[in-house]
Amino acid sequence: MSAATDPDFWSPPATAHQEANEALRQARVVIVGLGLMGGSLGLALRARCACREVVGVARRPETVEAALQMGAVDRATTDLAQGVAGADMVILATPVRTILRQIPLLGDLLSPPCVLLDLGSTKSAICRTMASLPDGLQPIGGHPMCGKEVAGIEAAEATLYEGKVFVLTPLPRTGPRAVALAVALATAVGSRVLFLEPERHDRLVAAISHLPYLLSSALVATAEEVSRRDEAVWKVAASGFRDTSRLAASDVTMMLDILLTNREAVLATVETFRKHLRDLAERLEVGDEAGLRALLEAAHARRSRVTSS
Amino acid sequence: MSAATDPDFWSPPATAHQEANEALRQARVVIVGLGLMGGSLGLALRARCACREVVGVARRPETVEAALQMGAVDRATTDLAQGVAGADMVILATPVRTILRQIPLLGDLLSPPCVLLDLGSTKSAICRTMASLPDGLQPIGGHPMCGKEVAGIEAAEATLYEGKVFVLTPLPRTGPRAVALAVALATAVGSRVLFLEPERHDRLVAAISHLPYLLSSALVATAEEVSRRDEAVWKVAASGFRDTSRLAASDVTMMLDILLTNREAVLATVETFRKHLRDLAERLEVGDEAGLRALLEAAHARRSRVTSS
Repeated sequence: MSAATDPDFWSPPATAHQEANEALRQARVVIVGLGLMGGSLGLALRARCACREVVGVARRPETVEAALQMGAVDRATTDLAQGVAGADMVILATPVRTILRQIPLLGDLLSPPCVLLDLGSTKSAICRTMASLPDGLQPIGGHPMCGKEVAGIEAAEATLYEGKVFVLTPLPRTGPRAVALAVALATAVGSRVLFLEPERHDRLVAAISHLPYLLSSALVATAEEVSRRDEAVWKVAASGFRDTSRLAASDVTMMLDILLTNREAVLATVETFRKHLRDLAERLEVGDEAGLRALLEAAHARRSRVTSS
Repeated sequence: MSAATDPDFWSPPATAHQEANEALRQARVVIVGLGLMGGSLGLALRARCACREVVGVARRPETVEAALQMGAVDRATTDLAQGVAGADMVILATPVRTILRQIPLLGDLLSPPCVLLDLGSTKSAICRTMASLPDGLQPIGGHPMCGKEVAGIEAAEATLYEGKVFVLTPLPRTGPRAVALAVALATAVGSRVLFLEPERHDRLVAAISHLPYLLSSALVATAEEVSRRDEAVWKVAASGFRDTSRLAASDVTMMLDILLTNREAVLATVETFRKHLRDLAERLEVGDEAGLRALLEAAHARRSRVTSS
């Protein structure tokens, strides 16, 4: 089913959409965290003239400098309070546990009806923390389903969000205009919006994103163990190994935050995976060719249906 | 270490190399099995005018027709005996267990000093079977470390072997001229030759190729189980899932042959993998952040050293 006809992908009514786009065009958008995600967002917003001003906040002066040079921001600072002053919309593009620390700080710095959107890869803990923000502020969770293994603003690109799914997890307190503004931002950078409950989001990405990361890491550890007895293992590594192990090169600090804030869902999906791997290994062990073929063909058929890439 | 300076990668002495190249140019090369590997080999040999004639043998008349139309062969037939008549070199590019059935048949059809090379993905069982061929025939095992998930001659391309590692596993009986001819063939299509014992090859590819396939299949089965409760799981699948699950789309018949002819090595590597996955899950479960970080950073560092792709 294409996004255009899939009822889970939200398209706002034309008039609301126009209003929100206009509000975005008038907005001062502040991006906190100028890494791959934040830097790419700034580049995309500025390339499309989607808002009045893009302000960046980064921890390190070199990042501020790089963001300015790349044109990812109109201006930038290392000072959070100074950066978010007068913001219509603040977007947290830092690792999950940094976001959890920054939300209460921003509660003291932002003025209603400022919209606070985050791009963190897990949503339950963040949305729980957002719920304690002072009244009037408009928090909403977000997770663009894009990224690369390479971290940092050097890897940022204006097209990163294009054609990607941008999950939004509004809170019960999030007003319709804040939701519409977040939708306008996501669609302005080329993404399709999918609304999910925070807990549901976390369960799904545990299986589809966090589990694959752990598998890649354990696969590399396995090959490493084999290589201690026979270094030639790396010489026969072809594209299959490279694809399957690619996620092991993800940013470790970012992934630790994700795993530790989604522990239960990740462990549950690891358990499910173990069961399926055991099924395969047992059939292989006893030489149950028909049974093994059935499992492999089911996976083959599902993989082909899911994606043609 | 680059292949050029790595002593494991074999470069023949210049004169022997020239002689073998000349022998290849005079040779009638018969490729049995015109799928992705065989079809690509034919295309590559013909594009470089590396041999006198490329003859194809395929099971189905449509494949013969397709191979002729693509220019992957000079001529082709569905009749094995007719195809291999007068061959200087026969290359088996069929699934492993088909190769095991074809080797004895070819023992009756080939005349010394014909070289018999195979491209099967496991080598121990094949080289054991090759050892029983009539005296005078020159068998040698081979495994080009390339491929795609898409099977069939439609996916064949002349560049498939370029820059790839081509493992050769000579038997004790394989003569130096047969080895040199196999090297000439591998280098003619752009590959680098790596010599390995058959059992060592099988141990290494179990970890680097067969394990990743099982992981991909079990990952897809896990996502499928999640999707039975929540279909939206497919909507949040991004590039990380696609990469990690790609091998699940491999040709099942080919992979079954591989797994069943390399059972012990595969099961041993699955056991090693399970241990590493358990290590990761246990540290996550007890919240041992430092321990989890250490494991993930080791995998990250190793993955970065192994490959930059």
